[in-house]
Amino acid sequence: MLEFELIERYFRRPARRATLGVGDDCALLTLSPGMQLAVSCDMLVEGRHFLSTVDPFLLGHKALAVNLSDLAACGAKPLAFTLALALPRAEAKWLEPFARGLLGLADEHDCELIGGDTTQGPLNICITVFGEVPQGQALLRSGARAGDDLYVSGSVGDARLALEVFRGTVSVPASVFASARTRMEQPLPRVALGLALRGIANSAIDVSDGLLGDLGHILKQSGVGASVNTDVAAGLIAAKAQYAQVSTATDIELAPAQWLEWVLSGGDDYELLFTAPQSCRASVVAASEASQTPVTRIGSIEVERGLRLVDGKGRSVPNTYTSFDHFA
Amino acid sequence: MLEFELIERYFRRPARRATLGVGDDCALLTLSPGMQLAVSCDMLVEGRHFLSTVDPFLLGHKALAVNLSDLAACGAKPLAFTLALALPRAEAKWLEPFARGLLGLADEHDCELIGGDTTQGPLNICITVFGEVPQGQALLRSGARAGDDLYVSGSVGDARLALEVFRGTVSVPASVFASARTRMEQPLPRVALGLALRGIANSAIDVSDGLLGDLGHILKQSGVGASVNTDVAAGLIAAKAQYAQVSTATDIELAPAQWLEWVLSGGDDYELLFTAPQSCRASVVAASEASQTPVTRIGSIEVERGLRLVDGKGRSVPNTYTSFDHFA
Repeated sequence: MLEFELIERYFRRPARRATLGVGDDCALLTLSPGMQLAVSCDMLVEGRHFLSTVDPFLLGHKALAVNLSDLAACGAKPLAFTLALALPRAEAKWLEPFARGLLGLADEHDCELIGGDTTQGPLNICITVFGEVPQGQALLRSGARAGDDLYVSGSVGDARLALEVFRGTVSVPASVFASARTRMEQPLPRVALGLALRGIANSAIDVSDGLLGDLGHILKQSGVGASVNTDVAAGLIAAKAQYAQVSTATDIELAPAQWLEWVLSGGDDYELLFTAPQSCRASVVAASEASQTPVTRIGSIEVERGLRLVDGKGRSVPNTYTSFDHFA
Repeated sequence: MLEFELIERYFRRPARRATLGVGDDCALLTLSPGMQLAVSCDMLVEGRHFLSTVDPFLLGHKALAVNLSDLAACGAKPLAFTLALALPRAEAKWLEPFARGLLGLADEHDCELIGGDTTQGPLNICITVFGEVPQGQALLRSGARAGDDLYVSGSVGDARLALEVFRGTVSVPASVFASARTRMEQPLPRVALGLALRGIANSAIDVSDGLLGDLGHILKQSGVGASVNTDVAAGLIAAKAQYAQVSTATDIELAPAQWLEWVLSGGDDYELLFTAPQSCRASVVAASEASQTPVTRIGSIEVERGLRLVDGKGRSVPNTYTSFDHFA
């Protein structure tokens, strides 16, 4: 298969929103008046962001999902994306499901593939995504204020559990692993929640490198501190309750500290971590309901810098959690 | 060096034009009223787009240059770009010159780095570039009209000559190689020419996969044919005249057909190939002078589909040239 044939067969579609799509030197996009362009870019590499065993359909989904998650964290509405793809070989059996997973999620979010590049090389997927947000309404990492509540959407830590099972460091019943694996391989970008939080949340970030590490970015850029309730946080990993239900006498019991570690420093979650004034609690609940996305209040923003972990009884918990770093 | 330290040290600069630059989930860009956003994306892989021997400074330059060349081909003014970088190791001795080459060219074109991603992996550089062009004024591949003159900027084929020297298939005097190598490793994006051709050129493309192959995209998308004067084209490779001057009796003489092949199917040139009505010849000359970019008229667009090669005496020349394909 030749390069142009590959693009034509799997990735070319008629331009919709774009004035000009795939097939020229540039794509052309026109923004609505009063809108700012939100841009984000993520590169996925085999062995770092996904395992060689992953189904190409799910990989196509995930490659776009992690980018849409960045738009969600800014409260931006998805518009379009470019795809750059380095492939060892141009094989239909990989390209067909990959394109289907990718474009399926793109269609769900009305996000148009407008251009890109294909080349031979070690498998590498680089997507740059474009969204729009009304002037001045983007959710930023820098907007957290002392007194804000701290929330996180959905469940956190399950992707890390799945990774540890793949790595062989832990073993769990098959049904627990299957759910956790879906969380790792098919994350749900919280676009609807991000849009619903415009005008409500003071700050937001997507949890990709670990909850506490990503919270650290909000704290640093906002010049504030926070305390996080570890008893509440411990409940964020969906696999824990499932494990309690299905594990048998022969399964090794996992320590509470282990579950908590996956929640606090797991990574690959693609949930939204955000802060909102206490006066907006009802609005946050409404946004959660409108977007059909569960949210949990896990702590609060404080004047005193730094991060404090406290249990449900208000006792201090030592913070020994690290976040993911590609070059550590 | 950690990931955030790497970004902070080499790639973070205060936001200028961007409303929000490096360091949040998304960057935010505001377009001027009446402007369309032009977007292009190129991925560079070691061994495909550059050799492992390349100076990281030059690689930084080239990675952005090939993207700016796409904006040039659309007549778009550079605004900003994102950089995704997979690196085997985070080493200052590579990152420092790479960032200097990249940001040096970016500054020349007032093109701001607004975001990106870094990860560990086989060396891969993916840049997505953003430019602006007044609504409806972008130069497209699809605009060529029968009767148009066909032009190409600068020199073509030298990068391919340098590649062949590296491959050991040909040998040339050191000074000839040095010039050709500069063309390969440090291409000049023809941004000023692209801007000057707005309202003059009917169509344009940048020559990256070989002159005839890229001309083929214009012909296909415009539904026209062309004839190209091979005697004129043969003069487009700067190395040829230089070779004639400096080669000695011991140098093997290179066949005219060999020079012509490098011109017509060489690739990696990043010159603009464009068409303009015959009535605009004076305007094309003026655009060339205003942008200080030489252009050569190499043929004409015709109603009859297909590509015809003719020599200076009007005799037909067989077309045996192929363009570069990543998966051929």
